Amino acid sequence: MPEKARIGLDLFGGDNAPNSTLKGAIFALKNNFIDELYLIGGEETLKNDIPQELWSKIKFIKAENSVDNHTKPTEVLKLKNSSIYIGTEMMKNGELDAFVSAGSTGALLAAGTFVTGRIKGIDRPALVIPLPGKGGKPRVLVDGGANAELKPAHFISLAKEGIAFAKFLGIKNPKVHILNIGTEESKGTKLVKEAAEYLTNDPKINYIGFVEGRDIFEKEIDVIVTDGFTGNNTLKTIEGTAYYIMSELKEKIVNGGIFAKLGALLLKKALKGLKASLDYRQYGGTFFLGINGILIKAHGSSDSEAIANALAVANRAVKENIVEKIKDIL
Amino acid sequence: MPEKARIGLDLFGGDNAPNSTLKGAIFALKNNFIDELYLIGGEETLKNDIPQELWSKIKFIKAENSVDNHTKPTEVLKLKNSSIYIGTEMMKNGELDAFVSAGSTGALLAAGTFVTGRIKGIDRPALVIPLPGKGGKPRVLVDGGANAELKPAHFISLAKEGIAFAKFLGIKNPKVHILNIGTEESKGTKLVKEAAEYLTNDPKINYIGFVEGRDIFEKEIDVIVTDGFTGNNTLKTIEGTAYYIMSELKEKIVNGGIFAKLGALLLKKALKGLKASLDYRQYGGTFFLGINGILIKAHGSSDSEAIANALAVANRAVKENIVEKIKDIL
Repeated sequence: MPEKARIGLDLFGGDNAPNSTLKGAIFALKNNFIDELYLIGGEETLKNDIPQELWSKIKFIKAENSVDNHTKPTEVLKLKNSSIYIGTEMMKNGELDAFVSAGSTGALLAAGTFVTGRIKGIDRPALVIPLPGKGGKPRVLVDGGANAELKPAHFISLAKEGIAFAKFLGIKNPKVHILNIGTEESKGTKLVKEAAEYLTNDPKINYIGFVEGRDIFEKEIDVIVTDGFTGNNTLKTIEGTAYYIMSELKEKIVNGGIFAKLGALLLKKALKGLKASLDYRQYGGTFFLGINGILIKAHGSSDSEAIANALAVANRAVKENIVEKIKDIL
Repeated sequence: MPEKARIGLDLFGGDNAPNSTLKGAIFALKNNFIDELYLIGGEETLKNDIPQELWSKIKFIKAENSVDNHTKPTEVLKLKNSSIYIGTEMMKNGELDAFVSAGSTGALLAAGTFVTGRIKGIDRPALVIPLPGKGGKPRVLVDGGANAELKPAHFISLAKEGIAFAKFLGIKNPKVHILNIGTEESKGTKLVKEAAEYLTNDPKINYIGFVEGRDIFEKEIDVIVTDGFTGNNTLKTIEGTAYYIMSELKEKIVNGGIFAKLGALLLKKALKGLKASLDYRQYGGTFFLGINGILIKAHGSSDSEAIANALAVANRAVKENIVEKIKDIL
């Protein structure tokens, strides 16, 4: 466990940069969420907006604001002065322990994979997504969308990233399931059937079997492994369904007279919390695991609170050495 | 439009066969949901349980009860005396206009495809699934799980089956979207990108573009085309999310004191209806389109009401000539 976590923050990425991003960083430092901050894309002149007692905890790293959501992912590899390139390069050089950005997902994935580089033994870095579940127990879905197309053997990397992240979330000896359209061995595509063989044969993976979409939220589910296309579609379908249910309930309430309105008022808080917990974009940050460093994508519309949370999570991931957790099971 | 629809009913399939199945059939005949019924697996001795005034509307077709959920789909092709084989064979021979069964999905798909046979010009018969949506407008997802793996060109068959079914649901000039993990042309797998080209180039398909899982329930969506693995997983994820939300709300209510309980009571009906509308298994029957006949899979746990509904839907599909609707756009 490193004594001090060196956290980098991309000052340019996201809809509310740089103002809310800086505000979130100041909040995180003031409340000791983090020890040391590298403001990538920040200049000394920013000091005017930062309380003097925090100056010693901040380093300013010059960078260009040259990546946006229209930048092709691979293009970022040529934009060597961009904040995303510099942040991921500093991780590669051991100058940063973690890098948080609300910038383009595709560019971050490309830079994480090719600039920071993969952990030796990991074929495919991937997005690990925490989901809520019955009884309040979290679960992890991987790949959330980094790799649309995968080969069966890649599921080993995904499973190990998922296991490491599940442990980070406090789940002991995480059980691994592959997402499929049936639980019998004969069900599904060639991809999932062959992937199941790979996971069965790896002694470091506690592979249980297939799980169906209807059982994602059941208590016994810890890690759900799937290709990035299926994973991303599953997350978006969860989100779409939650929004649809809420909007329908709202409609029924509006047309339901005073009693329905009263009922809704009483349930409002519960409904709202649930919707947020099912929108994977609402989390402070999404981990991109499998690279030699901690890369966290904050949501594009992150406000200062979301940025502060993402920095806090990054700090905890460094302290708990999530990268080593993956290496341990390789 | 045929004068009288000849509807076949599998007396053996499903958990509540044959008692509830027969009860549902009697109800459908009594209420003129259907004109003429072929009880596949029924014997003359059943007349004791059927009101005499209905006898003239029923034909009894002997069959063996030899298919269950453990029967391998292709095995049914050898079980020539099974009710599923006989029902699909009678469609092939023009002796039946529609066949309703609550039996094994896999066996029905195999028998529909290989015994009844495909419509000429259709590569891949598929499951078309009606889904609810914002503003009360229905939409259609195809393939709901008949073909786990598909080639891009097969999406043309799927789209046309979906269009025919959307028209059957009252949607005029249905718009077609392909399910993907982004709406930009560059997003997704090779499969969906190439499928998009096929649909763009077919003048009989009103292809709009990609749709994401989060927008499935939006007003402007009519037909969603996807491979059977993604489609089935999407349906099951919708179902799982709906159940999870309901169970969480229930928990919050139980622990929420008297006011939350009151609120819940007032919303109970709305919640229940919503959950049912999002469980694709709750529909009276699922259409398997693309074959030369109307094949409807009733849910395995169908009660008499569900069977009566499935028969009514089958009757309407014959009268509206859904098979011709597909042929018209080939």
